[in-house]
Amino acid sequence: MKISLNQTVECLQNAQDILIIPHKNPDGDTVGASFALYYSLKRMDKRVQVVCHDLLPEKYYYMYSEYVKDNDFTPQYIISVDTADVTLFGENLVKYADKTDLSIDHHITNKLYAKKTYLASSAAATCEAVYDLLIRLGTKIDNLIADCLYTGIVTDTGCFKFNSTTANTHIVAARLFECGANYDMINREMFDNKSKARIHLESMVLKSIEFYYNDKVALIVITKEMVEKTGADQAVFDGISGVTKQIEGVDVGITIRQIEGNEYKISFRTSERINAFSLADIFGGGGHVRAAGCTQNGTIENVKKKILEAVKEKLTPYL
Amino acid sequence: MKISLNQTVECLQNAQDILIIPHKNPDGDTVGASFALYYSLKRMDKRVQVVCHDLLPEKYYYMYSEYVKDNDFTPQYIISVDTADVTLFGENLVKYADKTDLSIDHHITNKLYAKKTYLASSAAATCEAVYDLLIRLGTKIDNLIADCLYTGIVTDTGCFKFNSTTANTHIVAARLFECGANYDMINREMFDNKSKARIHLESMVLKSIEFYYNDKVALIVITKEMVEKTGADQAVFDGISGVTKQIEGVDVGITIRQIEGNEYKISFRTSERINAFSLADIFGGGGHVRAAGCTQNGTIENVKKKILEAVKEKLTPYL
Repeated sequence: MKISLNQTVECLQNAQDILIIPHKNPDGDTVGASFALYYSLKRMDKRVQVVCHDLLPEKYYYMYSEYVKDNDFTPQYIISVDTADVTLFGENLVKYADKTDLSIDHHITNKLYAKKTYLASSAAATCEAVYDLLIRLGTKIDNLIADCLYTGIVTDTGCFKFNSTTANTHIVAARLFECGANYDMINREMFDNKSKARIHLESMVLKSIEFYYNDKVALIVITKEMVEKTGADQAVFDGISGVTKQIEGVDVGITIRQIEGNEYKISFRTSERINAFSLADIFGGGGHVRAAGCTQNGTIENVKKKILEAVKEKLTPYL
Repeated sequence: MKISLNQTVECLQNAQDILIIPHKNPDGDTVGASFALYYSLKRMDKRVQVVCHDLLPEKYYYMYSEYVKDNDFTPQYIISVDTADVTLFGENLVKYADKTDLSIDHHITNKLYAKKTYLASSAAATCEAVYDLLIRLGTKIDNLIADCLYTGIVTDTGCFKFNSTTANTHIVAARLFECGANYDMINREMFDNKSKARIHLESMVLKSIEFYYNDKVALIVITKEMVEKTGADQAVFDGISGVTKQIEGVDVGITIRQIEGNEYKISFRTSERINAFSLADIFGGGGHVRAAGCTQNGTIENVKKKILEAVKEKLTPYL
């Protein structure tokens, strides 16, 4: 059941012993929104725990630096944050999925699996929606909470670049500046902090871009071998699929990344002419209108062929 | 003489037969601010001309698409826009420099060469300051003017990423969204429109990055030969020096670009620990605290050596 902003505020006011669950493979928005809620609810003298299926990336440490785990904790109220589907809880936490009391999200694709869902589908980030919630809750937005919310907004909008950004997104950003968000550090950490390994990987990736269908499709393949050459870990991939979208005239950017042997993760980034979600959906994946993904098994040649055929069909009106 | 916002508005109200001069090598901010002023003053039934030393880049066409040149025009009032120094007028227009009635700028380094200067040094872009001027002038900000102002703001702030961005920058952006700025197109044109030549150049550049002084300095050299290989024109370089600043732990990013034979253009991009302007100043250049540049003549080895020695001196406290 979808509920309103005021109803959500009421739920938060009444909740006790709250478990907050960000989605697996946590990004800036799910981490930021989760900890902004955590600090806010803690200051209301509630018991709150944040538990994620995956380790929280170290680059987000400034957001969870004041988190204190309560070892003697039994959740009475479960909130999922920025989590559109139960599969995004991750194996370790999927047991909570059908017990979720409240889902706070901005994904239009939210499956409404929770008892109550606050779906702010016009918000560019869940953090933008959480800002409204905290204001209504009467939380004083201090610089720590401002850091969390600003991080979610900039990571989910590519620093106000994606078309999901609205006037309200900028208004909230202005308020967070006024509340002391450390925007300079955050922007540097999120966008200007490429490791040498990442630079190496980007160089290889750019060199190997393949173009198809009158250059309307750009495709990159990242093999395990390439990654091993750079000596990099997983985090080095953040945003790498954005590279394809940056090329002039490209309607569909495809990134095929080898996970293990014959298992590949595919990311689609599209222009306004093509629906990325509907592409990923063909292969059992999901996501947003302009950015979506799926996994596929097979030889790289077969995977590439299958994907390119599906893309060609969507592109036909423009070829 | 520096003048206030209200005094500047009064100057604009009284001016007739106005020549607006953007700086040479025009960027999004100088073009945006110049044409926002142009459309605004035209709607006040004034005669206005915009003249730039260089051809306006085609990618900014949406800003000057409604510009109509008046062939029978004698300027009575000269305004320079976003132009800190007379050298930035360019050879063709330097004759107007000491006749400038009004300089509208946000560069703290403005040499105050004009009779009157409106210096909005806390504005992240001249366009942010021009927004205030137009509001006070009573201009209706339509979608064309909003496009001009939004372009200047996003290009001068790296889409709200640079630390010059303030709460007010976001407030102005929100207002421009409400006035119909075509932000999606503009962000795509300014940031996600890399040509195949640019991709090729980036690949070469990333591959050839040199690191110095415990990786605190990243240096790239772009030779004419590299550029010829890509088949690219000048526009392909826009923002390329930003690449060096994106690397983790780098305090000084240096881009050395061969202009012709032994002539090199050097760009400095620095972290908050090093003043880019004071580096460029050593070599007779100029710019901002985090981004500045100069030109040097000599063999590439000598230029590199000279630059690296100056950088080393500034970095000494951190080595």
